[in-house]
Amino acid sequence: MPAIAYLECPRCHAHISAQSPQTVCSECTDQPAGSLFVRYDLSHLHGTEAREAIARDAGTAWRGMWRYHSVLPDVVPVTLGEGWTPMLQSKRYPGVVVKEEGANPTGTFKARGLAMAVTMAQHYGLKKLAVPSAGNAAGALAAYAAAAGIEAHIFMPHDVPFANYVEAIAYGANVTLVDGLISDCARIVNERKQQEGWFDISTLKEPFRIEGKKTMGYELVEQLGWEYPDAVFYPTGGGVGMIGMWKAFEELEELGWVKGKRPKMIAIQAADCAPVARAFDQGEAVSQMWQDAHTFASGLRVPKPYGDALILEIVRASGGVALALTTTRSSLLSRIGAATRACCFRPKARRPRQPTIICWRRGL
Amino acid sequence: MPAIAYLECPRCHAHISAQSPQTVCSECTDQPAGSLFVRYDLSHLHGTEAREAIARDAGTAWRGMWRYHSVLPDVVPVTLGEGWTPMLQSKRYPGVVVKEEGANPTGTFKARGLAMAVTMAQHYGLKKLAVPSAGNAAGALAAYAAAAGIEAHIFMPHDVPFANYVEAIAYGANVTLVDGLISDCARIVNERKQQEGWFDISTLKEPFRIEGKKTMGYELVEQLGWEYPDAVFYPTGGGVGMIGMWKAFEELEELGWVKGKRPKMIAIQAADCAPVARAFDQGEAVSQMWQDAHTFASGLRVPKPYGDALILEIVRASGGVALALTTTRSSLLSRIGAATRACCFRPKARRPRQPTIICWRRGL
Repeated sequence: MPAIAYLECPRCHAHISAQSPQTVCSECTDQPAGSLFVRYDLSHLHGTEAREAIARDAGTAWRGMWRYHSVLPDVVPVTLGEGWTPMLQSKRYPGVVVKEEGANPTGTFKARGLAMAVTMAQHYGLKKLAVPSAGNAAGALAAYAAAAGIEAHIFMPHDVPFANYVEAIAYGANVTLVDGLISDCARIVNERKQQEGWFDISTLKEPFRIEGKKTMGYELVEQLGWEYPDAVFYPTGGGVGMIGMWKAFEELEELGWVKGKRPKMIAIQAADCAPVARAFDQGEAVSQMWQDAHTFASGLRVPKPYGDALILEIVRASGGVALALTTTRSSLLSRIGAATRACCFRPKARRPRQPTIICWRRGL
Repeated sequence: MPAIAYLECPRCHAHISAQSPQTVCSECTDQPAGSLFVRYDLSHLHGTEAREAIARDAGTAWRGMWRYHSVLPDVVPVTLGEGWTPMLQSKRYPGVVVKEEGANPTGTFKARGLAMAVTMAQHYGLKKLAVPSAGNAAGALAAYAAAAGIEAHIFMPHDVPFANYVEAIAYGANVTLVDGLISDCARIVNERKQQEGWFDISTLKEPFRIEGKKTMGYELVEQLGWEYPDAVFYPTGGGVGMIGMWKAFEELEELGWVKGKRPKMIAIQAADCAPVARAFDQGEAVSQMWQDAHTFASGLRVPKPYGDALILEIVRASGGVALALTTTRSSLLSRIGAATRACCFRPKARRPRQPTIICWRRGL
């Protein structure tokens, strides 16, 4: 595992030390301050030999996302078996593969980010973590905090799926249900954290949830034979998965580990909570707060993501698009599926390039 | 993948062809008829070279339990990403590892058996499958049947966990809730199957659910570096997992792929439904129907498992024991955990050999 060289702000390009725990960029003069990215010196890993070592070292053991330890911080993992999820071939659309992120601990891709963030919290000796959650992050934080023996303080909208609430409680977290949206929960965490001694482990407000989620990008490329897909359809609430995958693609190119053209990134939002899709359509650099946000896909009910500027940049740079989808089909599975699935087109020329759909998250 | 040589009855030792779909042994003169085991000619796979090919061929792809295709029937899999689940090191008991079977599709180890059984049903061209289920098998059959485009007819006790019911319905299965136990559900399937044209895919009433579950035994051994653990604690309802792992151990020895002494097999049952533990204590060869069976661990509520004789044979041959455990601790997680977890002791002499506990099934 490499040592962290520094944390970098994508807005003001400041370099900040990772010796002590960091939140957002402390050097930004404009608000909101930039989310920090972890940077390493990866030069010794350049080329296919270091790449081939990944599968060889994983060997017969089960290492999950930590098979990429060579491009993750050099610390002792807090792990519950996250990552290295199946890639399933679509039957209906042969050109499409589905990354089944529901196979993660606590049933969602949130496990990746929180495994990494709680690992670093343990490394830094933090004792109390706080987070707002639209559902799935709550269960994941509660599980990893329990595994690390760290307190979790969680604020969720009162109408989150009951399973997420029960899960967080069962893992021993301190859960408060809030009469409002995730943005209201975030405000409460922000108001109380200093007095309570909580470290704010919210999406994009510390550097390591992105770092965990970047492993989706590594896996997706490795599982396609170290080739890019043509496109990635990504259900976008907070958007950290997309930001993490994009970071992975940058690193993979720096490392010389990937072939082909970077995929189009397609952000999928629910029609009744689509701030990023609206900003994309209007050519704006950031989103505006979505009024009266609602969707069956609770994880996508984020009325103004903190990373909106980054998401919009990535979608545009990739030649992709941000889409607001309605859930018009009547069956339960279609409703569940429409806004919570993602897909990527395979680059094999001999296969038809048709879209199909893959779950990034189960149970939304 | 090898061709199936024949199906073998462990009771009367008859050899039966696998050219057409089979249920239980048709040659047994005593009732109940023996459950059939799949036999292959594995002689060409003997030795460590064929063994090392498994990890090498899996390479950078995600193959799940089908990484063992060399010891599974030579047919096209119906897969949703089952198997190759994490092995987690216990923190509390360093000598113990946990096989997290909850990472399987539909959240339980039932996925392995039903992936294989539905794969064979597709191979044979069967159109209608029926099963009684105490909970988890219902969701798994419904999912794999949907993936294969086959009808599923499921009979469950009326008080199964609601999640299992919803899951089966959502995947499009025909679900009937029965005012009784799984044994009553089994009776209904048995009474109606001929008239309805259902193939009975019940536990141990066809040969391939065992065959899928044997992959747990292969994984457990491979993930411990092709060495046996000292013991396997296995939550025992129908007991197919234990029977499947024991079959894997026989094959692994025939193949020369494993080192060490076969593990003690510890069958764990819930105190208020413990027919196998009672028969073990009383020195009986088979169990008696447990009256007024109840337990929070719905998957273990099997008042007389069809495979009781096989389970008791395995437990005794291994030098193990069958235990009835009460759930005395008060927290929700303890209650969930007590009867639904399993563990194995690692053979490393440098580590203390203490028991810890691993989930075979999540969410029971």
